[in-house]
Amino acid sequence: MKIEFWFDFASTYSYPTAMRIESLAASQNLEIVWRPFMLGAIFNRQGWNDSPFNIYSVKGEYMWRDLNRVCDDLQIPFFRPKIFPQNGLLPSRVATTFSEAPWVSSFIRSVYSANFEHNQDISSPEVIESCLNCSGEDVASIIKKANTEESKDRLRKQTEDAGKKGIFGAPSFCVGKELFWGNDRLERAIQWAADKKAQSIKPYSRD
Amino acid sequence: MKIEFWFDFASTYSYPTAMRIESLAASQNLEIVWRPFMLGAIFNRQGWNDSPFNIYSVKGEYMWRDLNRVCDDLQIPFFRPKIFPQNGLLPSRVATTFSEAPWVSSFIRSVYSANFEHNQDISSPEVIESCLNCSGEDVASIIKKANTEESKDRLRKQTEDAGKKGIFGAPSFCVGKELFWGNDRLERAIQWAADKKAQSIKPYSRD
Repeated sequence: MKIEFWFDFASTYSYPTAMRIESLAASQNLEIVWRPFMLGAIFNRQGWNDSPFNIYSVKGEYMWRDLNRVCDDLQIPFFRPKIFPQNGLLPSRVATTFSEAPWVSSFIRSVYSANFEHNQDISSPEVIESCLNCSGEDVASIIKKANTEESKDRLRKQTEDAGKKGIFGAPSFCVGKELFWGNDRLERAIQWAADKKAQSIKPYSRD
Repeated sequence: MKIEFWFDFASTYSYPTAMRIESLAASQNLEIVWRPFMLGAIFNRQGWNDSPFNIYSVKGEYMWRDLNRVCDDLQIPFFRPKIFPQNGLLPSRVATTFSEAPWVSSFIRSVYSANFEHNQDISSPEVIESCLNCSGEDVASIIKKANTEESKDRLRKQTEDAGKKGIFGAPSFCVGKELFWGNDRLERAIQWAADKKAQSIKPYSRD
């Protein structure tokens, strides 16, 4: 059974999800499908040209405090980035193009740490190159492939697909047609997928 | 130690919170301060003249599905009301005026059940009178007192207070100056209050 993880590298609550989804999914033998998308394009269609956490600053201030508490409870390091939201186009192209590479989950965690732990600029090629060191592959050729028109189109299409699935925020999770939104729904989505998986196992029969 | 429960009778996620907060708080010997307010007035200031779940319908459709799942997990009956958001002014005035009455928690649960289980009109005096049967007191005089100018002013002031505390949605919880938002933060808010309570108990000393 698969769980699709839809995320945006600028999204605050996607950070604690990205740091823990792999171990949670593994505990239920679930496969993660990594689905980066550009949440800003979805927001644009709702009439927002900035993060709603900036537009609605009272809610935004609450979010930073809440995220701090959430990360503290999960023992995940957190420092409020100076720039929010950051431009995650380059790492999104990398993660889309190489979504099935064995190193993609490590890369994704590195980019989130760069943003929400180390206050680094994730639109910088140097920062993303450094995040790609975990790949053990030739970093320059990864970046080159991520910047082809084909890769750009793939990310655009994936963002379109997010909209078609009714995704309006990040992180989101899809298990079949069932949609879950928010870091605080991660456990429920994992359980949903595990229940579906259990149902799909045919009972053993000697006959 | 006290936990303030800020709620709006039209608010969807306040429903599962209202149905379970009393037993959760009791398990930690916490006192609940019941704080109804008019969320619509807060939304108005953000430029919304309707629930954001109606304005942003994709998010709204997700919310109904999610609320259904949440209530199902908690074994709380749920039926999507035909009218949303309902006008909760009258029950809010009652709950504000009688926030310290021993029957207030039962009344609040009755109103939420009327809205989210029985699809009743909670702006109707007859419905609210029926919800007040749990009080064991003279219902007509309760309604009369709730409709005085003094009671109306009290609810207005309480809504102002919500805004001053940085409350932007419901349910919200305040433990001292710490703010929590959402049914999915109820357990964390209860734990926060319990931890504060434990810290406030002076160690016993023989000296």
